[in-house]
Formats: sequence, C-alpha cells, structure tokens
Amino acid sequence: MTSVYEFSPRYLEIDQQGVMFNGWYLTYVDEAMTHFIEARGVPFSRWQELGVDVQLAHADLDWKAGIGFGDKVQVPVRTARIGTKSFTLEFEFRRGEEVACAVSVVYVVVAADGSGSTAIPPEIAAAIE
Amino acid sequence: MTSVYEFSPRYLEIDQQGVMFNGWYLTYVDEAMTHFIEARGVPFSRWQELGVDVQLAHADLDWKAGIGFGDKVQVPVRTARIGTKSFTLEFEFRRGEEVACAVSVVYVVVAADGSGSTAIPPEIAAAIE
Amino acid sequence: MTSVYEFSPRYLEIDQQGVMFNGWYLTYVDEAMTHFIEARGVPFSRWQELGVDVQLAHADLDWKAGIGFGDKVQVPVRTARIGTKSFTLEFEFRRGEEVACAVSVVYVVVAADGSGSTAIPPEIAAAIE
Amino acid sequence: MTSVYEFSPRYLEIDQQGVMFNGWYLTYVDEAMTHFIEARGVPFSRWQELGVDVQLAHADLDWKAGIGFGDKVQVPVRTARIGTKSFTLEFEFRRGEEVACAVSVVYVVVAADGSGSTAIPPEIAAAIE
Repeated sequence: MTSVYEFSPRYLEIDQQGVMFNGWYLTYVDEAMTHFIEARGVPFSRWQELGVDVQLAHADLDWKAGIGFGDKVQVPVRTARIGTKSFTLEFEFRRGEEVACAVSVVYVVVAADGSGSTAIPPEIAAAIE
Repeated sequence: MTSVYEFSPRYLEIDQQGVMFNGWYLTYVDEAMTHFIEARGVPFSRWQELGVDVQLAHADLDWKAGIGFGDKVQVPVRTARIGTKSFTLEFEFRRGEEVACAVSVVYVVVAADGSGSTAIPPEIAAAIE
Repeated sequence: MTSVYEFSPRYLEIDQQGVMFNGWYLTYVDEAMTHFIEARGVPFSRWQELGVDVQLAHADLDWKAGIGFGDKVQVPVRTARIGTKSFTLEFEFRRGEEVACAVSVVYVVVAADGSGSTAIPPEIAAAIE
Repeated sequence: MTSVYEFSPRYLEIDQQGVMFNGWYLTYVDEAMTHFIEARGVPFSRWQELGVDVQLAHADLDWKAGIGFGDKVQVPVRTARIGTKSFTLEFEFRRGEEVACAVSVVYVVVAADGSGSTAIPPEIAAAIE
C-alpha cells in the first residue's frame, strides 16, 4: 500500500529555466514522508513519545524531466527496506504516468536524547512496513 | 585543482533538530558549482554565448554529520568524469578535516534552444577538466 | 466577498524559536494572492493574455503571534483599494479567531513587454473588486 | 555608524520575472541584522547569555526596483529608534547609489524563558545605538 502526497510547485520555486529548482525536491520529499507516516498512523508526535527521531543518511535523486508552474504532481511513497536501525523509502514525482524524478532516501533512527542511532521501535516498523 | 566554495548556513536554514535542513544542500551545491565554473573561467554567461545550458540528471548525497548555525563550511569541488554530453562533479561539505556530507552530481548539457541534450563545448570541457 | 487560502507550515519553515520564520510570510502571501485571483476568475494566465503582469511596490507586515508546526492557518484575502495602476490587498494569517499576522500589499500593474506601469485592465479591476 | 552587509542573490532566488523573489528580502534582512549586531560586538550568543531573544513585531518594505542575478548588493543597516522593550532598524538594498528596496523593522526583545517582552539590556542598547 502506498501513500500519495500531492502538490503544485509554488511560484518562487520555479527558476529561470522554467522548472522547479532542484533543491526543492528534498523539501517535498520531507513533506511526502511526513504525510506517509501520518497516513500509517505514526505521526512525528508519536515518534517523540517513543523517544526517537529520524535523520537522513543517504539520498539519491534521478531526474527524467522537469516540473513546471501549475503542474499537478503526485508523489507516491513506498517502503523499500526496513533494517534494524534504518529504513529506505522510495518516492516518485509523477504527472499522471510520467515520472519526472525518482528519489530513494535512507533514514536512520536516532535517540531523541542525542545518544545516537537506535533500533526502530517495533510499532513504527510495523506501521511503515 | 579544486575550487573551494565557503559559506555559513543562514539562521532560517537551521531546523528544529538544530542542523541545516537537508533540502538546502543542493542549494549550496548549486552555489558551489557556479563558483567552480567561474573560477575555471567559464561562467554561465559564457555557456549562454556558446548556446548551451545545464540540467541535473542525478544527485547522490551521503550524510555523515549535521551542519550547525555558525559553522564555517568549505565545499571543495572536483571533476570526477567528463563524457560526451554529461559530466560529474563531486562536492564535499567540510568542517576542517571532517566531511559532513559528500555529494555527487551528474550534469547533462542541453541546447539553450530547448532541442535537448548536446555535446559539451570543447572550451568548457577543457576548462572544467 | 473574501477568498480564503489555507496551509500548514512545512517542517523546514520552522526556525529555532519554534515558529515559522518571518521570511516565509511573503511566500504564503504570494500563494494566497494567486489563489485569490484564480477564485475571482482571473488567473495569471489571463493577465498574460491581457499583456500585463504585477509587481510588489509595498508590503507591510504586523505580527501579533507566531505560527507553529502543525498549525492550520487560514489566510482570508480582501481588496482594500483599486487605483488606476495599482491596487492593495489585505491578508490575515488566522488560527480560528486569532490573527497571528496582518499583511497589506500594494501591487503595481506593469506591461508584460517591460515598458513600465500601466492601467489595470477593466476586466481585472471588476474581478478583484 | 552603519554596518554594511553584502550579498549577491542565489540562482534559485531569481523568479520568472528575472528578479529576486520578494519573499527573500526578509531573509537577507535577517542576515544583515545578524551581521549588524556582530559588528557592534553583541552577537546572538551574547543575547542568549543575557537571557533575551528578539522577535519581529513589524516590517515595512518599499520597493523601487528589482534585483537581478549577478547583482552586487550592499545593505547598510542603521538604528532608527531604541525604546524600552523594542527597537527599530532600517535597511537599504543598494546597488551603488540606487536603492532597490528600503526596509524598516521593529524588533521586540523577549525573555528567553518564554515569559514575554522584556527591557532591552543596557549593554545591547548601548551597542546598537
């Protein structure tokens, strides 16, 4: 089951080439990830209650096309891997059938007290599976 | 020979985790790339005169640590590969000897008239080598 | 009749004081203005057909409170004044009855050909009245 | 005595009208303000030691012209008023003699413990006078 986040780029995000500037993709990935965990019943407030937070360890972006002003973009999110202390989500920036950009992000779960990486709480692992 | 771009993150770029938000890295990569081609004698105005522009095809970011407010960051840039129509640059976000994030970007050269990818002009290939 | 634009701030827009950074307000004003003219039947594509564009001449922001992560914000937009070549819109950033920030913006209508300020087309003046 | 902050807009900050998007002005005001208090010997770390922080109460922006990519911009900062709990700074976005935008900001000093507005510490008042 995938979660789909939807958006249209803001005017300010369109650059002189007439497409959404590349730096905004990870911003939308962040929005889509937040939407994804909420849809799965484990919003960030729940992660905080469980004493954990999350950090990006790796991101991989693969562009096929640009996104223009007014475009309606869907971002399906799927879980590619769940490890002991990290997990990988995959995002597609779609206009209908066309994938403008495919993104893969490795997230590391860290203790909220700053003591470093820690095991994914079973409740979260089950929710995002 | 490498070109080194330097910056300190802006207050607004620091998030609730106390580090520079991940989406700003590609923004600084863009600044560092602009600085790099200027240092090599082929600023974007020269690319325009040669009838070409550049687009990101792929970006790969690998985080080791976060960057905080007030940190002085150096971003050395080096050319990893020059192909016929694309080239790869590597960036490191450094605080002294520590590499907080390593980024690799594949750029595709496109015709400024919108007709698609095109060969890297020899003048540019020689400059960024 | 007012048009109401709604949003929740993005994670990256929250600063170290735990509130939406002040620079993002004008970004949301831009979104709310775009939403407003679309709701009134004169989207930017229509302005372009009429040969005009719009620029900010003045903005006035008055903060009463901050906006936090997760807040649901309504931004009603109303027309305060329509002149010959400029008009003024007023925006409120509201959480229910509380106004966190009140913004007033003077927009100048300019010719799309770069020749400077020009009269507001009657169709647009009637639509945003 | 004024403090002058200097910058050139980033590529991503230039919009489809070919000028720096209006939302970025307050971001540069923030940078210029940080630079100003550092130049006066009271960086934010000193404010924190004194138990105070600062919030924007009012901002007023007056545009005369746009700022383009590659423009070298100077932002002189001067203190217009120092009250008991608030002070006003004035910023100009200059290209040589031309003022592209004049900004006035009212800052309110607040207790770092969240208890609300408080008197400006004498050390800070003397420094920014």
